[in-house]
Order: sequence, then C-alpha cells, then structure tokens
Amino acid sequence: MSLTYDFYNPTTIHFGKGQVSSVVKHLSKDNKILLVYGGGSIKKNGVYDEISKVLEGFDWIEFSGVEANPTYETMNKAVEIVKSENVDFILAVGGGSVIDGCKYLAAASLYDGDGWDFLAGKAEVEKALPLGVVLTLPATGSESNMAAVLSKKETDEKRFFHSPFVFPKFAVLDSSYMNTLSDRQLANGLVDAFVHVCEQYLTTTNTSLVHDGYSETLLKGLVKLSCDWENRSDALWQENLMLLANQALNGFIGSGVAQDWATHFIGHELTAFYGLDHAQSLAVVQPQLLRVLSEDKEEKILQLGTNVFGKKGSVEEIIVELEKLYSSVGVSTNLNDYNIDDKVIENIIPALEAHGMIAMGENENITLDVSEKILKMTMK
Amino acid sequence: MSLTYDFYNPTTIHFGKGQVSSVVKHLSKDNKILLVYGGGSIKKNGVYDEISKVLEGFDWIEFSGVEANPTYETMNKAVEIVKSENVDFILAVGGGSVIDGCKYLAAASLYDGDGWDFLAGKAEVEKALPLGVVLTLPATGSESNMAAVLSKKETDEKRFFHSPFVFPKFAVLDSSYMNTLSDRQLANGLVDAFVHVCEQYLTTTNTSLVHDGYSETLLKGLVKLSCDWENRSDALWQENLMLLANQALNGFIGSGVAQDWATHFIGHELTAFYGLDHAQSLAVVQPQLLRVLSEDKEEKILQLGTNVFGKKGSVEEIIVELEKLYSSVGVSTNLNDYNIDDKVIENIIPALEAHGMIAMGENENITLDVSEKILKMTMK
Repeated sequence: MSLTYDFYNPTTIHFGKGQVSSVVKHLSKDNKILLVYGGGSIKKNGVYDEISKVLEGFDWIEFSGVEANPTYETMNKAVEIVKSENVDFILAVGGGSVIDGCKYLAAASLYDGDGWDFLAGKAEVEKALPLGVVLTLPATGSESNMAAVLSKKETDEKRFFHSPFVFPKFAVLDSSYMNTLSDRQLANGLVDAFVHVCEQYLTTTNTSLVHDGYSETLLKGLVKLSCDWENRSDALWQENLMLLANQALNGFIGSGVAQDWATHFIGHELTAFYGLDHAQSLAVVQPQLLRVLSEDKEEKILQLGTNVFGKKGSVEEIIVELEKLYSSVGVSTNLNDYNIDDKVIENIIPALEAHGMIAMGENENITLDVSEKILKMTMK
Repeated sequence: MSLTYDFYNPTTIHFGKGQVSSVVKHLSKDNKILLVYGGGSIKKNGVYDEISKVLEGFDWIEFSGVEANPTYETMNKAVEIVKSENVDFILAVGGGSVIDGCKYLAAASLYDGDGWDFLAGKAEVEKALPLGVVLTLPATGSESNMAAVLSKKETDEKRFFHSPFVFPKFAVLDSSYMNTLSDRQLANGLVDAFVHVCEQYLTTTNTSLVHDGYSETLLKGLVKLSCDWENRSDALWQENLMLLANQALNGFIGSGVAQDWATHFIGHELTAFYGLDHAQSLAVVQPQLLRVLSEDKEEKILQLGTNVFGKKGSVEEIIVELEKLYSSVGVSTNLNDYNIDDKVIENIIPALEAHGMIAMGENENITLDVSEKILKMTMK
C-alpha cells in the first residue's frame, strides 16, 4: 500500500539552556501579552523570574491557576481577560495542560459561540490568537503540535480538538527547567511519550523504510531512560526526555501510517471520572488493549519486542516487558491501585458511547463490547 | 555536552499519488504565477499536462531551460520575467536544480543589487517571493529546506546560500512522477541522500538519544534500496527513495549536532570545473576524506559499520563497504573515471581558498593541505 499524507509543522523549536531569551524574537512592543501558567511552580523554580526579566519593556499581564487537566471553566475565565484587555499574544509557560488550555484560549477568544463547540465537534477552529510556549514539563508534545485536550467539570467530560491554527509559533525547550519536577511527573512524561509513539506504531505493518525506524529510535531512547531511572536528576537524562517527548508527537511518525489512539480515548474517560493522571490511565489501559487486540497487532508487537526490547518472545512476553517498563518507573498497570469504585464499566462505557467512541483503533473494531472487555481486564 | 539548537521548517508536504491537486490550496486567482522547469522532461512524462490542468483558471506563465547545475546567468533571465510580468508566486517543477534556481529567483527578484551577492556572502536575503514545489527527482531535499546551490558560468564557481525566506511554502511529493527517471538519476539521488545524512552523522559522538538513531534509519533505508537496485522501477522502491531523500536534508537530523560538509564543498569545486554530477563528486571525495580524517571520525565510522552495514570491522573495512555501496548503483568512487585533466590540484585548491574553504569539517581541520591530500587520493 502506498503512502499518502499531508505534513505541516511550522513551530520554531528553541532547544537548550538559556533559550528563553529567544522569546523576544517573536514579540513586538506593540503586543499585549497574556502570560499563562498553572499552580505557581514556576514561581518557586525561578522560571517566572527569568521570563519576567526577558519580558521587561513589553506590555504583559498574567493568568494563573490552569489545572493539571485544564478545564473549560477555568480557561473561559482567561477568555474574558483576553477580550477585556485586548490581548493579542498568548505565552504559555508550563506542561501539556497549560499549553492545551492555551490552545483553547487562543481559539475560543476569537470565536463568537461557546468554545466547547470545538471539543464537542460542533465547530471547526477558523482562527486563533498567536501562541508561544515555554515548556517546563515534557510529556505530551503539545508544544509543537496542533492538538489539545480539555475537560469540562460540569459534565465530567474530557475531549480533544485539533486545528492547524493552534500550532504554537515557537516553543522554548530548556531542560534545565525540569530540575524541580517530581518523580511522578518525570515518570508520567516518559510513559506518556512511550504510549504516544505506540499509538502510531503498534498498528499494522507498512511499507515505509522511515516511519517504524524512527518510532523505534524514540521507543529505544525511552527504554534507555527507564533503565537509567536512577540518573533521572542528571541534566542529560532530562534533556533527552524533553527531546524524545517532543518528537513522539509532532506529527511526523504518524503521517501516512495507520494510527490507533483507543488507549487514549479510554484513558481520557478514566481521567474524567476518577482523576487518574493521564499517563496512569494509559499504563492501565494499553497492556490490556494489546492483549485483546493481539491477533490484529501480533506482527508489530513482536517487532516491538525484537527492535525495541531486544527480546524475541511471544506476544504475551512482549506485553509483560511493556508492563515491567511502566512499573519500573513507578506507574502502575493495575486499575485497582487507584481509588476506583465498582461502577467503572457503567461509568465509562456510556461515556465512550456518548463521545462516539464506538469503533476505535486502526481497524475500527474496538467496539463498546471490546472496550468493556479491556476495562474488566485492567482490574487485576 | 548538552544540545542547543533552533529548528524551523514550515514547508507543507503533500506526499502521495495525485497530490498535485493540492497545489491550488496555496494559490489564489489573484496570483500571477511563474511555472519554472528544466529541459522539458516534464512535457514528455505527462507532468506538465497534469499541472496545466490543475492551473486551469489561474493566471500563469512559464520559464524553462534551468540547467542540471542551475546558473546565475539563466536564473537572471527569469528574474527579468518576474519583474516585467509582475509575477508574485513561483512554482518550481523538477528536481533540486530547478528548486535551487527558484530559491535564487525568489530572493533575487526582490533584491535591488546583484543576486550573486547572496552566494558570495556579501548580502543576506531579507525577503523573497513565495515558492511552491512539485518534485520530480528526489535527491537534494531542497523541496523542504532553506538552502540553494547556484553556479556562475563566467567564473566556473559553484556556491551556496541559505535563508528561512526561501523555504518552499509547500512541496508535492508524488513518486509516480519518477517512472521516467534514468538509472543515473536514481543512483545519483540515492548517493546524494546518503552523503547528506553522513555529513550530519559521521562526525563526533553526541549525547542525543534521537539524532543518530534517526540518521541510521535513513542510511539503512538507503542501503536497503541499493540492495534492491534491480527493483528500482517498482512504485514502492521509488516512493521510499522520495521519502528518504526528503528526510535526509530537512534540517532535523543535523540540529544541535556536529556537521561536516567538507565533502560537499570539495565536490562543488569538482562540479564547477569538470561538470561531474553532484552525486558523482560526492562519491569520489567522501571515502578518501574519511580515510584522511579516520582518526577524528573513527568512533562514528565504526558505528556506521555496526548499525547501518551490520558489520563489525576496521575503519578501512567500513569505508570499503561505503565504496561498494556507491559502486553497486553504478556511481564510481575514482576520479580517473571522469574526463579529468592533470591540473586537478592547481584548479581546485585555489578555488577552495578563494571561497574561504580553508578550515572545513566538524573540527575545522580540513585545511587546504588536507584537501590536497584528499584530492590526490581520489585519483586511484
């Protein structure tokens, strides 16, 4: 089967120590800038001070309090500020949550209707304010892609949208900003990046001499970081996680090849209902999804074993390797390890149905029945 | 050593059969378009007819006759047309030569001085007309990078310039357009792409868990195509060459790591004086350059052997593998196989000096003496 794809990624990456000074290349003194961040960690680790210095002489205000899973409700407060203060440039400082929230903010601020329309699939983004990023927590790749995931508290929903209009203009990737991250944040980033690659790799075989090889390079890099977990405070370890997580979801490795994303869609529901971290939800769902879909994915799972884990074995043995990888950095693959009630199935399955997730995966055969089977297996 | 880089590549890639129809997404009826091509092969293979159909209803004129090594003299004729006809969009249809010529055209048309200033390093490009590409011959990666190489007939010079302003807005990569290419063109494309990766890989070791792995994926893909040389007429073979050559020089694998490019700079002089194809010049120079620089590059050459050729051996054995690769697709590594006089040294060394190429390579230790040594070894 021949390859067909469109690829576009205009985000300028400024990678390396001190690159925050590059922010000003993208701003003018005429801009009215809104600096957006999360819970205040950037004030403790010095990043806020550095950015304040860089922004000296520019016209900027700030908005903080974006949650770990950014909500529609919170970001709408920022939309009000953008409108009332005539903001024309958004500077997101944080991880995937702040960036995703700001993508919504950039689009919703120029939209006459209810911004949730983008998430509910009722409207396409047609314009957005320019957005820049200073990344402090590598994981989602959101700093240079066009996707965003938002949650709605009122209805316990977690949905996504994408649009080329919300590509960040630039992203500063300075891994020295990672030195105050917790083990949980680093582990989540590693698992998130690993599953991102898998969603674009553990599907059907393809004829490209490029895509699988690049995916395997990224996966091998992440495995190496998990083996070097005790060195996670080292600058080089952190720099590589930032690099790997960025490449894991910038659009290229998925271009023209089959993609899955069912692990993400089921995981989103678990986060929406039970508050699991995004990566925790992925680590719980993915191994069981691979077991249930093992016939479809056999060839690629064995390829993962050989080319990434350096292990020839059965599909089950390779999936066990995957579980060991997640466990080795402290992320459980058992849903029972979280504060979960016995209503998982009756909560999650109707939500998947309501969100149209009734035929997921590269073969569109992950029906609600299949999702139910997967979910039951996550409770070991 | 930590990684520092800026990466930016805004070119939209439309990959796959029939993607020429995507050209119109980037044009408006108000545009005055100049279609630029080479020697007329696109009229024989049907590409011209397809593009004419796509451009129906648009306001376009054409310019043909761009040479295999595009010249300043020829492209200046196109500059005159752009100015006299108020052209505001350039559509390059061809391989690296046409595209490089059009990058010059795009920049020189908006420049008050002599366009050669960009090549001579006397001026920086500050603006350029928008440029789109329909690729017919994969090799240089020029379709989605910001570099261009031009020749000046008057002085037998071959120089380069680069500027973010000349990134193509889009590139159509439809490998079905390759089916009339000659063996020589396919082989040149394969060798050119291979050397492009090597210039960014066969240097010093680095700490990135991404760059070498991706480079090796590309090199292994090109080795595989050389092993499958008898299938070079197959659609999948051609599609992969187009994909590999594109990724080989789009900026990413070289970002933040040491680069060499001395093989290219010496090769450019050989092409300028003796008319060797670009890839022929690279295949002649590179193996000898690696022999002369083998102490500096030992670790990476051995890594190339292990990870790309699947061969553990001495540096010399790996360089022989490289020579075999080029020979296997019919590209000689011996300068005596071309129509070369005995004045090579006295022609090439002063040209390198005149162009400032006196301390090339990742360690800036390829002086004129070293270049002379390399050149002498190319005549076996």
